[in-house]
Amino acid sequence: MSDEQDLGITESKEYSPGDWYAEVVQKAELASYGPEAMGGFIVVRPRGYALWESLQEHLDTWFKQTGAENASFPMFIPESYLEREKDIVEGFDPEVAWVTHGGYEELEERLAVRPTSESIIAPYMAKWVRSHRDLPLRLNQWNSVVRWEATDTKPFFRTREFLWQEGHTAHASDEEAWAETTLRLDQYQRLYEDVLGIPVLRGQKPEHDKFPGAKATTTVEALMPDGKSVQGGTSHHLGQSFAEAFDITFADEDEVERTAHTTSWGLSWRALGALIMTHSDDQGLVLPPTMAPEQVVIVPIWQEDTKEDVLQYSSEIAAELESSGVRVHLDDRDERNPGFKFNEWELKGVPVRFEIGPNEVEDEEVTVVHRPDGENTVEDRAGVLEWTAEHLDAVYDKLYDAAYENLTENVREASDRADLLGTLGQHKGYVKAPWCGDEACEGEIKDQIHAEIVMVPFEDDAVARTASEFEGERVPEPEHGPEDDCVVCGEDAATTAFFAKSY
Amino acid sequence: MSDEQDLGITESKEYSPGDWYAEVVQKAELASYGPEAMGGFIVVRPRGYALWESLQEHLDTWFKQTGAENASFPMFIPESYLEREKDIVEGFDPEVAWVTHGGYEELEERLAVRPTSESIIAPYMAKWVRSHRDLPLRLNQWNSVVRWEATDTKPFFRTREFLWQEGHTAHASDEEAWAETTLRLDQYQRLYEDVLGIPVLRGQKPEHDKFPGAKATTTVEALMPDGKSVQGGTSHHLGQSFAEAFDITFADEDEVERTAHTTSWGLSWRALGALIMTHSDDQGLVLPPTMAPEQVVIVPIWQEDTKEDVLQYSSEIAAELESSGVRVHLDDRDERNPGFKFNEWELKGVPVRFEIGPNEVEDEEVTVVHRPDGENTVEDRAGVLEWTAEHLDAVYDKLYDAAYENLTENVREASDRADLLGTLGQHKGYVKAPWCGDEACEGEIKDQIHAEIVMVPFEDDAVARTASEFEGERVPEPEHGPEDDCVVCGEDAATTAFFAKSY
Repeated sequence: MSDEQDLGITESKEYSPGDWYAEVVQKAELASYGPEAMGGFIVVRPRGYALWESLQEHLDTWFKQTGAENASFPMFIPESYLEREKDIVEGFDPEVAWVTHGGYEELEERLAVRPTSESIIAPYMAKWVRSHRDLPLRLNQWNSVVRWEATDTKPFFRTREFLWQEGHTAHASDEEAWAETTLRLDQYQRLYEDVLGIPVLRGQKPEHDKFPGAKATTTVEALMPDGKSVQGGTSHHLGQSFAEAFDITFADEDEVERTAHTTSWGLSWRALGALIMTHSDDQGLVLPPTMAPEQVVIVPIWQEDTKEDVLQYSSEIAAELESSGVRVHLDDRDERNPGFKFNEWELKGVPVRFEIGPNEVEDEEVTVVHRPDGENTVEDRAGVLEWTAEHLDAVYDKLYDAAYENLTENVREASDRADLLGTLGQHKGYVKAPWCGDEACEGEIKDQIHAEIVMVPFEDDAVARTASEFEGERVPEPEHGPEDDCVVCGEDAATTAFFAKSY
Repeated sequence: MSDEQDLGITESKEYSPGDWYAEVVQKAELASYGPEAMGGFIVVRPRGYALWESLQEHLDTWFKQTGAENASFPMFIPESYLEREKDIVEGFDPEVAWVTHGGYEELEERLAVRPTSESIIAPYMAKWVRSHRDLPLRLNQWNSVVRWEATDTKPFFRTREFLWQEGHTAHASDEEAWAETTLRLDQYQRLYEDVLGIPVLRGQKPEHDKFPGAKATTTVEALMPDGKSVQGGTSHHLGQSFAEAFDITFADEDEVERTAHTTSWGLSWRALGALIMTHSDDQGLVLPPTMAPEQVVIVPIWQEDTKEDVLQYSSEIAAELESSGVRVHLDDRDERNPGFKFNEWELKGVPVRFEIGPNEVEDEEVTVVHRPDGENTVEDRAGVLEWTAEHLDAVYDKLYDAAYENLTENVREASDRADLLGTLGQHKGYVKAPWCGDEACEGEIKDQIHAEIVMVPFEDDAVARTASEFEGERVPEPEHGPEDDCVVCGEDAATTAFFAKSY
């Protein structure tokens, strides 16, 4: 980025969030749009891909610690395989990109570019699983998939090809498959809350919005500053539908042949979209220190006669931080002035800036500035490792707290249709209300205000194991039952639903 | 793998190398064949993928240390982009898989599933490069590509989809592009020699066998035990052909607009094929400790009355090794006897086995067995960390030395056509001979004996920078010139060529 005028963000997060988001993504050099002939595709540039690598490193470590192993299945799926599980083919057929020719020859059978891999992994599971000793079988792959949806491209949020991980497991019992489903949801929640700085709500998708063929689809939902909900990652209990369609059976301990229970779970680069949109501002990208490629940037401020001392002092500090594992960058470019550097690193989202001039050198101090709010402090050189860690934690907490406040301030209640429509129309965020469970009631709201049911809180029995781990704080219990009236039709309610506009 | 009879390798490496290779790959659970409708595709299972991850970790670290950054470009390329560089379209068109439909609609323009990404990366380089300050630009991506070749599938060696990395760089001068080309070739050589335990020869592909559009294609070649050469990784100096076709220009320091010089370099999972084929034997997979997912397996040997002591002693040793970073596995399964475990871990290629029974516990010793040759030693418990490191190094050296011997014993010379054909027919490996540089002379040999020119040693001027780093040992200098006669046609020789059968 060589032109000064490129550095400023011109759009406003508050007044034109869509344009502002697109501008941040491009000017922070995270991604570019794909070729004109390929609407819906993006190019992820090194600064964007570094975020994906950081996310991968966290999730991949947790997956491996909990028994999942990485593998690699073909990117194509024969049409006949896709057709073996009827819900999958119905669910994905309208969105499949088809390979019809190899070289100069037309293929005998069309190949789907995978929209998701259940249909090609399940037949291999069927081969590899013979006995109860082969279970659980836990596979994961990091790859890209293609879904030919509408082309209103929004980098990371809505793209026809996206990077993700997809986990696929097989188990001996329904209980074990449930435990797996919630274990992966826990890991997604942990990624959002402990790494991305974004609190999430946990729950299930309504019956009609589940993954094709699934018994249950669990989700973590994040609230964006513009008031829309993002489905942050989903973990599916597939029951026995895939195991039956693909013959995944095993000889149990009692020698009886039984059908396995499977799960699948996926998290895509949409998580990066949520990250960028949640924390960034009108100066550009804002990143939590957990994710930032550079956690600290040191900007030295010198005149000709002080240059040597300032650079010497700065590079000693950089070396000390680096040797203790802090990702630090010393911006010693000659051809740029400090103000330019401040703007550039603000745009690129470096969480903590050290300003070091002759005064700092003389007083053996460092001026420390936080990215999200410009708060600055002067610290003693001596304790640099300790207070750097504290500043990085403080920045993380500021970002998380702001997102948490946005979430908790934007969960409202409604008791009838007018109230529901009014609240969804006037406010950002979620409306929690009793619901009869009928798709038609959601449909009516969708038609009128483009909001939908993004989540139904868990039933106790399904997730007793994990709800407690999170102190119930963001795992709302279903508060409503037959004693309440559905917010739309007025019939007996079956549960609580969270309505919201969503990405 | 639950059935005992699955554990043995039945084919012979010496007498039926093709079947033996396929059996090792499957029984060591590295890979399976793809769906029947998809000849040429494979599924990489966790034990195979772990090898890829290990390889990635090494190369990716070196790439990043030397200025390359990872990015992600779309998996499709519009046909019109592919056509912009004529050599690329001629070279790859016969092998492209085409996407013609998205959902229920026929696409206006066909999309190629990338066979390689120059044609979609170059136009972005053209956008991002404006000034000499934007150079060098060094991008890399880890992905999979598709080349619709003949379907005689050989896992990792010959597959229609394969995993690889592809690096793409742009530079201000021809010299810098050359330096980049050889830097990456150095890294490939380092991977083979320091990680995979395989010595390689370095050189250039003959003019007619270069990457489409390239000025030069450099290669590392590895000799397999069956006598065929494997192209282990290639690094291309693309000259200005792509930069001209896609307008990659920059304002130089003197303000003059100049055309950039580009390179690309790729290494695929074929490296894993070379790894498996080089070291493995009739007992199964053999891996160097650098690559093995488990470097040490501990097999405890107990009777009921000694079980507790043996397991206690074994797990203390496992913990000590693990805490110092050794990848160790304690096989404490009750339902398998030690002999079964020995066979299983031999099949799976664990380099070093510890056998621990009551005698070892009493004498505070460990029996140590090397995988490649069964050599065993009794060591004192006390120095376990030191001597484990020594044994791992010793196993690496054994593997490397055997491969080195195979290579050096199988480079022969020939001075005329009969000699060349005879030597290629009777012996494994390379024949080094003077060559006039004419494709027709190679063609004649190809027709008669299916051997080809796999490499031409570097000219001094092109690689003076790097040849010295490797002491010239495996960078043969061209020994032949106009004073010699081409081994095929007898005309004046232009250089030295290495003939071999190849994968």
